[in-house]
Amino acid sequence: MKPFLSKDFLLTNPTAVALYHDHAAKMPILDYHCHLDPQQIYEDVRFQNITQVWLGGDHYKWRIMRSNGVDEYYITGSAPDREKFQKFAEALPRCIGNPMYHWCHLELKNYFGYEGTLNGSTAQEVWDLALAKLAGSDFSARGLIARSNVAMVGTTDDPCSDLKWHKLIAEEGKMDTKICPSFRPDPALNCHKAGFAAYIRKLSDASGIRIEHASDVARALSQRIDYFNSCGCRASDHGLDYVMYQEATEDEIEATFRKAMAGEIPTVRETEGYQTYLLLHCGREYARCGWAMQLHFSCFRNPNSRQFASLGADCGYDCIAVTDSSAALHKVMDALNKTGQLPKTIVYSLNPADDQWLDTLLGAYQGTEVPGKIQHGSAWWFNDNKVGMHNQMTSLAQLGILGNFIGMLTDSRSFLSYARHEYFRRILCNLIGTWVENGEYPADMEFLGQLVEDICCNNAKRYFNL
Amino acid sequence: MKPFLSKDFLLTNPTAVALYHDHAAKMPILDYHCHLDPQQIYEDVRFQNITQVWLGGDHYKWRIMRSNGVDEYYITGSAPDREKFQKFAEALPRCIGNPMYHWCHLELKNYFGYEGTLNGSTAQEVWDLALAKLAGSDFSARGLIARSNVAMVGTTDDPCSDLKWHKLIAEEGKMDTKICPSFRPDPALNCHKAGFAAYIRKLSDASGIRIEHASDVARALSQRIDYFNSCGCRASDHGLDYVMYQEATEDEIEATFRKAMAGEIPTVRETEGYQTYLLLHCGREYARCGWAMQLHFSCFRNPNSRQFASLGADCGYDCIAVTDSSAALHKVMDALNKTGQLPKTIVYSLNPADDQWLDTLLGAYQGTEVPGKIQHGSAWWFNDNKVGMHNQMTSLAQLGILGNFIGMLTDSRSFLSYARHEYFRRILCNLIGTWVENGEYPADMEFLGQLVEDICCNNAKRYFNL
Amino acid sequence: MKPFLSKDFLLTNPTAVALYHDHAAKMPILDYHCHLDPQQIYEDVRFQNITQVWLGGDHYKWRIMRSNGVDEYYITGSAPDREKFQKFAEALPRCIGNPMYHWCHLELKNYFGYEGTLNGSTAQEVWDLALAKLAGSDFSARGLIARSNVAMVGTTDDPCSDLKWHKLIAEEGKMDTKICPSFRPDPALNCHKAGFAAYIRKLSDASGIRIEHASDVARALSQRIDYFNSCGCRASDHGLDYVMYQEATEDEIEATFRKAMAGEIPTVRETEGYQTYLLLHCGREYARCGWAMQLHFSCFRNPNSRQFASLGADCGYDCIAVTDSSAALHKVMDALNKTGQLPKTIVYSLNPADDQWLDTLLGAYQGTEVPGKIQHGSAWWFNDNKVGMHNQMTSLAQLGILGNFIGMLTDSRSFLSYARHEYFRRILCNLIGTWVENGEYPADMEFLGQLVEDICCNNAKRYFNL
Repeated sequence: MKPFLSKDFLLTNPTAVALYHDHAAKMPILDYHCHLDPQQIYEDVRFQNITQVWLGGDHYKWRIMRSNGVDEYYITGSAPDREKFQKFAEALPRCIGNPMYHWCHLELKNYFGYEGTLNGSTAQEVWDLALAKLAGSDFSARGLIARSNVAMVGTTDDPCSDLKWHKLIAEEGKMDTKICPSFRPDPALNCHKAGFAAYIRKLSDASGIRIEHASDVARALSQRIDYFNSCGCRASDHGLDYVMYQEATEDEIEATFRKAMAGEIPTVRETEGYQTYLLLHCGREYARCGWAMQLHFSCFRNPNSRQFASLGADCGYDCIAVTDSSAALHKVMDALNKTGQLPKTIVYSLNPADDQWLDTLLGAYQGTEVPGKIQHGSAWWFNDNKVGMHNQMTSLAQLGILGNFIGMLTDSRSFLSYARHEYFRRILCNLIGTWVENGEYPADMEFLGQLVEDICCNNAKRYFNL
Repeated sequence: MKPFLSKDFLLTNPTAVALYHDHAAKMPILDYHCHLDPQQIYEDVRFQNITQVWLGGDHYKWRIMRSNGVDEYYITGSAPDREKFQKFAEALPRCIGNPMYHWCHLELKNYFGYEGTLNGSTAQEVWDLALAKLAGSDFSARGLIARSNVAMVGTTDDPCSDLKWHKLIAEEGKMDTKICPSFRPDPALNCHKAGFAAYIRKLSDASGIRIEHASDVARALSQRIDYFNSCGCRASDHGLDYVMYQEATEDEIEATFRKAMAGEIPTVRETEGYQTYLLLHCGREYARCGWAMQLHFSCFRNPNSRQFASLGADCGYDCIAVTDSSAALHKVMDALNKTGQLPKTIVYSLNPADDQWLDTLLGAYQGTEVPGKIQHGSAWWFNDNKVGMHNQMTSLAQLGILGNFIGMLTDSRSFLSYARHEYFRRILCNLIGTWVENGEYPADMEFLGQLVEDICCNNAKRYFNL
Repeated sequence: MKPFLSKDFLLTNPTAVALYHDHAAKMPILDYHCHLDPQQIYEDVRFQNITQVWLGGDHYKWRIMRSNGVDEYYITGSAPDREKFQKFAEALPRCIGNPMYHWCHLELKNYFGYEGTLNGSTAQEVWDLALAKLAGSDFSARGLIARSNVAMVGTTDDPCSDLKWHKLIAEEGKMDTKICPSFRPDPALNCHKAGFAAYIRKLSDASGIRIEHASDVARALSQRIDYFNSCGCRASDHGLDYVMYQEATEDEIEATFRKAMAGEIPTVRETEGYQTYLLLHCGREYARCGWAMQLHFSCFRNPNSRQFASLGADCGYDCIAVTDSSAALHKVMDALNKTGQLPKTIVYSLNPADDQWLDTLLGAYQGTEVPGKIQHGSAWWFNDNKVGMHNQMTSLAQLGILGNFIGMLTDSRSFLSYARHEYFRRILCNLIGTWVENGEYPADMEFLGQLVEDICCNNAKRYFNL
């Protein structure tokens, strides 16, 4: 029996062990898509206690507490931090097989030096240990980034942002880590959602472009894309409930825009026509700038209307959606490709049943800009676990080229989440090591070491022109 | 090489062995959802030969015979019992990898003490052995339940039932096993199916409520729910082809009801409006009584119209359906939750491609009534096999809390099916044992033993207030 | 560690090793569905170099080159053969986990006697070796078939074909391998596609039947079915984007036919009505002739319109489609079965998420003509890899009878692809061997050896009346 969370955690054979320790572990992290707050990075924030750093905004952990029957008072409510932590610590041991169990203990070990296991009885000692550690200089935002060997962080930013914090960080010139913005224009596309007209006015202000027509939205976005580009942006991100492709005339798009600006909710078809128009416009602009376009889809947001009304979005209620995105995604890719304006693209579906068709889609639109121009993003959110990552990489390997994969990202709001890169790398090395040990691939350790380093870091570096 | 069906069947490591033998094996069985006939239990029926006990109503076995090219004469036809058994025995060895191969041999070993394997050549000796054994007192309905260490049986009952047999069993007071009814109101909801009007009249008689309007159906069901509650019912069961959610006005629902009572077939939309109305009504009533609501869906019933015409329903022709139930199930859950009237709910889809979105859905509607208020039911019917159960539990573990799972049920019509609980428990212990051996969870055997006992029995006991 | 591609490649235990070497390896190959050109077989073609035999028409390899960022000039363009091979050789090592890596090295080993691995540095030595070997007499089309121990080849043929090459091969009487045509009437059913009217005229000429009405198309197809039958045809093949079932009146079908003949594109509903009519007609005729009906579906063809315009079909752009085929496939099966005219049927979906519902569908329509009358075809195209085949067989075993499976086919255009039968057989033997070693099936090697031989060869022989 292997001890829990040992040096060779998740590595089941000597080839995997060698690949991980000699190659994967030492590579810098390129966390090209996350939700860290650049202001927190610039201001180098600190955390008072482990509840603030762990339970402050981590909806994964809130979900687990709810699944253990914990009252909202201890989750998003006003319970004292120590009590919240206790409730979480009591739930955790029951989460056998959940990635949260591994993430938490990797973080406790790597950052806090804690070798025990967290449960109701050890909660106090962990609490105390964390209190002490969090006071140290290596536990500030920058301290955590630095000690995690992070070469690049890709934040997620609103097109209206002036990217003040990114610029301040760059001007200051003290961080070894590149902090790049990413362009996420969802509010400009979601003409059916509350707050659209207000957002468009904000976009007008930010871009300095008077927005009277749908085409002005496109122009304003182009202006912001150029601005983001000048600030080191390398990627965009679209969070789509599902992928849509609805052809519409200029007049129809304009009518939809006016309707939405007047506060009316356009029909689904109208909305999709407007969204398709802007998605294609943005795609062409990304191609022009050499950016990567990230498309995230099949998420069902805010299904629990009661809790949405009381807590708002992103509180741990979102779910995997089953959507009919396959044909539409092909049409989007084809429409951009037809005119030679398909940017580098990374597709992520929240539904793992989509893995195989997605992996075949990649192969239909590759290009010569970079090996693996079209990528299947690393197992996302609910799939970011041992089986999910194993399956995503196996499917990609079978239907495409694993060696060109740009690898892991955290998609996280926490400065401790870099442990997930370690988790990914161990799973990657074990997958490859197992193939080699089984005689399914030659044991050329030099080539394999290079391949692992490529997937952990070099491919992404090349992909994002870093 | 491990011998076939040894003491450590399906247990591939020492931790799994210890968890199974020291913990899982000794726990009583709570078979909270099955199709046993309470009359057969009360009357303590006996079986003449192995064909009657095995092939009498087991559509799993009929399917296998058909897949082996066997004529219906030997399946549902009038062939002598010995010849039917011969045909099944000849088909079985070809079923390598089929759970039926394991179930049969577990039953032969556990109940008949047969250590050999069943095939065309051994059919006679098994037939003879079974003839002798079935004459013993431990092979009556009650004898089989008692020797299987069954603490609770949840039958499936029509709302019109007077639960006479349940009451007689309770009055008699001789059984150590609790025999609880479950409430299955499908015929009252299926206004588009033949026999609806007749059923409503029957419901009127049973409830003593004059049914003239759709709202009277709701009232009659409430009356029956109260009656079932007084007879120890703890759960309901809905067998839905797919999950529907169709809002409709009171007038529309009433019009649909009248149409159906007049013998006309309502449209799909009308039917769904009526069904949604009653499903929500029932859900609120279950919440009031503290019952669990079971929702079974994505089954395509009676696809073979020729055999349906000649044999009727439940003869082994039903299949996995691909349905669009995700969004509707969310709406049903949300509608009940919005007013605080969401009961404990157990969801089962026949399509294993639904596992992941279902497991995320659970997390959006949990409550404080009991840890794991919303459950993903154990791998159902076609998924009740080694891979299906492994996958259901792995997905649940990754996306929820495995430690709060209420575990296995047989869904069976046979008194020998308790072997399937053994099958489940071995797979559960092997899953957990393997994680521990691989260093993915600490080897705290006391905690793990408790966790296994919880999943095998204690969680369900708490869940159903037993 | 096992060396790469050893004698026991993919065989992880002694039972698997024994089953493969003592049983599977020696069985003749029945390649009942492929795309070999009968003219090439008759003329016993030879290949100039490895690019011609490997990269000439293999869209799997083109896909891989594209995924490695290779320019079309080296794929379908006019680059010299040696340079094309170089680009492929450079891409291959990055394809760890891709079946192409295994297929290529199995072919290099089995046919060319090459024991090294192919990459950019070894490309020249492989090129030279292949040049020398391809000059040998055992490298002609017939030489390759003969040394691969192929008992039967099922080609894929147009109903208008006079099957000249099949007849010449048969008349000549020199081949030990049976070369059987298969009937693929897609162009006669696709009334919505370009070239329909021209095709119908061609069909009229081939059949000698004047085609003025839709019913004449049916009669002409019947004439061709009889002709194909007289030439040894045992199977048909339908390549459907998705499975459709649309009832239509005789008048509606006739109107659709006229519309299409006039060069107009019928609506989706009209097209489906016409297609359903002919699919059912053909099905009944196949039943009359004792043929097997093959249904391939869920393929999205030619999604990349730019490359389709420049290269045409079948150039490596096709993808897995997500289609709603479940209910329609049931209706097709049921409609044929209702009148006792359901032929032996083999269903293949390109979407592996369909495996489970498909495997349950089989069981609803079995018959007494042959054990396993309704078959789930071997993992097709994108699924023809280690995990895909493992999953297809595991699902089939769990939900049906693996012992009655008719096994592997190449679906290939290449004379070297028989290595894929070896690949399949190793995976099959390892699956069964692993079950046996784990104590999940008795170690009756005589029975198991027979079972393996049945799946590798005997079942297909019986199924196709060979």
